[in-house]
Amino acid sequence: MGFRYEIRLSGYGGQGLVLMSIILAEAAGIYDGKFVCQTQSYGPQAWGGSSKAEVIISDEDIDYPKAMNLDLLLAMNQKSCDEYFRDLKQGGTLIVDSTFVQQVPTPRAFSIPFTRIAREELNRELAANIVALGALTQLTAVVSQKSIEAALLTRVPKGTQKLNMDALKAGIKAAKKAKKARMKMEIAPEISEEELRDAY
Amino acid sequence: MGFRYEIRLSGYGGQGLVLMSIILAEAAGIYDGKFVCQTQSYGPQAWGGSSKAEVIISDEDIDYPKAMNLDLLLAMNQKSCDEYFRDLKQGGTLIVDSTFVQQVPTPRAFSIPFTRIAREELNRELAANIVALGALTQLTAVVSQKSIEAALLTRVPKGTQKLNMDALKAGIKAAKKAKKARMKMEIAPEISEEELRDAY
Repeated sequence: MGFRYEIRLSGYGGQGLVLMSIILAEAAGIYDGKFVCQTQSYGPQAWGGSSKAEVIISDEDIDYPKAMNLDLLLAMNQKSCDEYFRDLKQGGTLIVDSTFVQQVPTPRAFSIPFTRIAREELNRELAANIVALGALTQLTAVVSQKSIEAALLTRVPKGTQKLNMDALKAGIKAAKKAKKARMKMEIAPEISEEELRDAY
Repeated sequence: MGFRYEIRLSGYGGQGLVLMSIILAEAAGIYDGKFVCQTQSYGPQAWGGSSKAEVIISDEDIDYPKAMNLDLLLAMNQKSCDEYFRDLKQGGTLIVDSTFVQQVPTPRAFSIPFTRIAREELNRELAANIVALGALTQLTAVVSQKSIEAALLTRVPKGTQKLNMDALKAGIKAAKKAKKARMKMEIAPEISEEELRDAY
């Protein structure tokens, strides 16, 4: 069986998850030349409620386009984090918007305040999805940054390109910081152990 | 088994099929309260090539989100018409953009020059997808016009709302004309038979 990478983007309706997933899918499918299937589902509960979009990236034709065992979950609100965390595979990547997600189910999650960054650094809360997209690109190697930029510029409305590129970069920067913080956290216990040993 | 309606929108990349399918899916899912699954797939051939997007509308949860037996096929170019016509179920609806599709595989197809209408009536060729969306709404009863309008206004960029509403209406008008023409064509043979009988 070939490479298959399953991503679910989830949060409130209106957070721009569908656009985000299309940019991601087109980056991987059109620019990186992978097989990609991008899906969103709506149920009678969709009105004013939760939204989710899925992207499956593969190096071979995708027979079953539903995500079953997530490699990456982005949760832009608490409800979607609570609801979908169980679908994340062991060792999978959880990224949450810490503006809205206070209770994170694992210490290995990347908590980044996408909406606060969009509001404070870009003066445009609605760009939170593109900030998150930048972070996601940085935290996984599944799409190239160059392809994400190309797909982004094609998909966003004219006149908003600069704002969106700034949002993407803000997300990349925030993700680098989050990565470093996690590395420190992971290294720290060993150092303490070492120090402890030295103490004896 | 409940109601399941499968739609495939196909054509060139860049014809706006993805946006079209999202508006259709949100109209049915968010505004009409149906279960909807919307999918697009990209393969290594996507670059500069064909594009397709699928929408499945159901009155129950959708287990298998790939279209297998189309109720409706929109073909915005000849290649997609040739390639996907075989996936249309018997009695299914074929709608083609006659600006680009010259060889129509069945006399029961609705041939409407979406791109020419967008160019000549709206001065904007890129609105052809919304003209087609209007026609599709008119030719099937699967989504309500009111819901399509609501979803359209939410999805298109600010400042383009009037253009897009005009495009939708142009499509509805063209579809009404096409429907009438087909009814005449279907009735005509009987009239001729009658006339023939009278002649004897």
